[in-house]
Amino acid sequence: MTMETVSLNRSHGGTQGVHKHVSAETGTEMTFSVFVPDHAEGAKLPVLWYLSGLTCTHANVTEKGEFRAACAEHGLIFVAPDTSPRGEDVPDDEGYDFGKGAGFYVDATEAPWAKNFRMRSYIETELPALIAAQFPAEMARQGITGHSMGGHGALTIGLRNAGRFRSVSAFSPIVSPLACPWGDKALTGYIGADRAAWREYDACALIADGARVPDLLVDQGSADGFLEEQLKTQLLVEACENAGQPATIRMQEGYDHSYYFISTFMAGHVAWHAERLKA
Amino acid sequence: MTMETVSLNRSHGGTQGVHKHVSAETGTEMTFSVFVPDHAEGAKLPVLWYLSGLTCTHANVTEKGEFRAACAEHGLIFVAPDTSPRGEDVPDDEGYDFGKGAGFYVDATEAPWAKNFRMRSYIETELPALIAAQFPAEMARQGITGHSMGGHGALTIGLRNAGRFRSVSAFSPIVSPLACPWGDKALTGYIGADRAAWREYDACALIADGARVPDLLVDQGSADGFLEEQLKTQLLVEACENAGQPATIRMQEGYDHSYYFISTFMAGHVAWHAERLKA
Repeated sequence: MTMETVSLNRSHGGTQGVHKHVSAETGTEMTFSVFVPDHAEGAKLPVLWYLSGLTCTHANVTEKGEFRAACAEHGLIFVAPDTSPRGEDVPDDEGYDFGKGAGFYVDATEAPWAKNFRMRSYIETELPALIAAQFPAEMARQGITGHSMGGHGALTIGLRNAGRFRSVSAFSPIVSPLACPWGDKALTGYIGADRAAWREYDACALIADGARVPDLLVDQGSADGFLEEQLKTQLLVEACENAGQPATIRMQEGYDHSYYFISTFMAGHVAWHAERLKA
Repeated sequence: MTMETVSLNRSHGGTQGVHKHVSAETGTEMTFSVFVPDHAEGAKLPVLWYLSGLTCTHANVTEKGEFRAACAEHGLIFVAPDTSPRGEDVPDDEGYDFGKGAGFYVDATEAPWAKNFRMRSYIETELPALIAAQFPAEMARQGITGHSMGGHGALTIGLRNAGRFRSVSAFSPIVSPLACPWGDKALTGYIGADRAAWREYDACALIADGARVPDLLVDQGSADGFLEEQLKTQLLVEACENAGQPATIRMQEGYDHSYYFISTFMAGHVAWHAERLKA
């Protein structure tokens, strides 16, 4: 498993790296960022994954997420992957909400997407193996979070892999692709018209179908312009209540969908994960 | 004094705004950002100015500076101006280090720059009046900081206006335009060949010539690629020692010139200013 380091910057008592590798899953070069706090030689640190939202790369949270001080304080490695395969040979859509920058953390089955759009397997299997091989990561202690489409990714990957992730949280997640226009477009395109096949990519459906994690933390801005039509946080509240899934789902008054919101609550999420990862 | 608000985002228990106005000094539209922490109705808050470096606008520190949590904690307004006039009618240079994005916080006297490049008067006079009129700012309590070219701006404006600024700090400042290629190019272009006229735009010369502030705080990364040829921190150490100017000038091991460095030490600078502004 080879990896090329693009940049290393000292920051907040640790090292912020950007790296790239050729992914067998996506058939493309993939770029990701990893923050590693200073640590004793030979020590291994828990890992917090952050999955980004529509239109983002690794760079958005790396530059604007304000996670490093908290990760250094708590001794967590922070991994931020890209949101889709990239490159001239990768098919795309003219919308911002499908194709490049919009992988939705699924393994596509429909042409022409199936060849490259394998972000589920990339995040669930290929990239973790690379992280384990290349970084001082204690892979028995992993948590996952994300924003918007990446909040959907964090919830669904976390719920499907409860044995791997000790902690699952999200910022303004898409809670049910089955119930919103973004999800309808993306899953029809990537997975096809059989909506029963979408349930493993829908946090509310996964919970209704029996998936469980010890608890969930979700922050959502009340002034988020996508709340009513796309995010529909209340569906997750109801799914958790109906299924007895413990969850703390907070509506944050006046906050929107931007990194001004995410960065405000990032340190709190990092601390929440650290408490569970280091228990 | 009119101002147009471009955007407002709730963040870290306050409001991050971006605003623009037509500047009489520069003869152009100027954009700046202001973070205002939540506060009691009618309360006025101390102001911390942040001057940005070469190629930057207000946006770099606003997105990547990680100042909001600390400003909210300490109750400081944070103002980030642009680094030069902008627009099609404004003269420019093909280099990144002169012209647009590189105003050097001087009032130019040379053609064709003199008409628009009046960043000294803009920062010293015009923008403070607008801030006082439009925001809950306690103008008797102002501090100033900045990065690189903006560190030069903060030091020189702070030293020249010690009655106005209670606290002055800088991140990796250009400490002596008289003694580096960036300064040589910019001040020759803006001010002309008479180097005696540059002394009011040179922190080391100002200190040698008698300017004083109660103390100074400077952080500089040891792995900063500009340290040896352009920044020359040691000249400021010597100028302060020779003149008896109190200063804390810290070399931060392994840190570079980027916002990964600035954001690491930002909260410390904000706390340092708050201590002096609220005394």
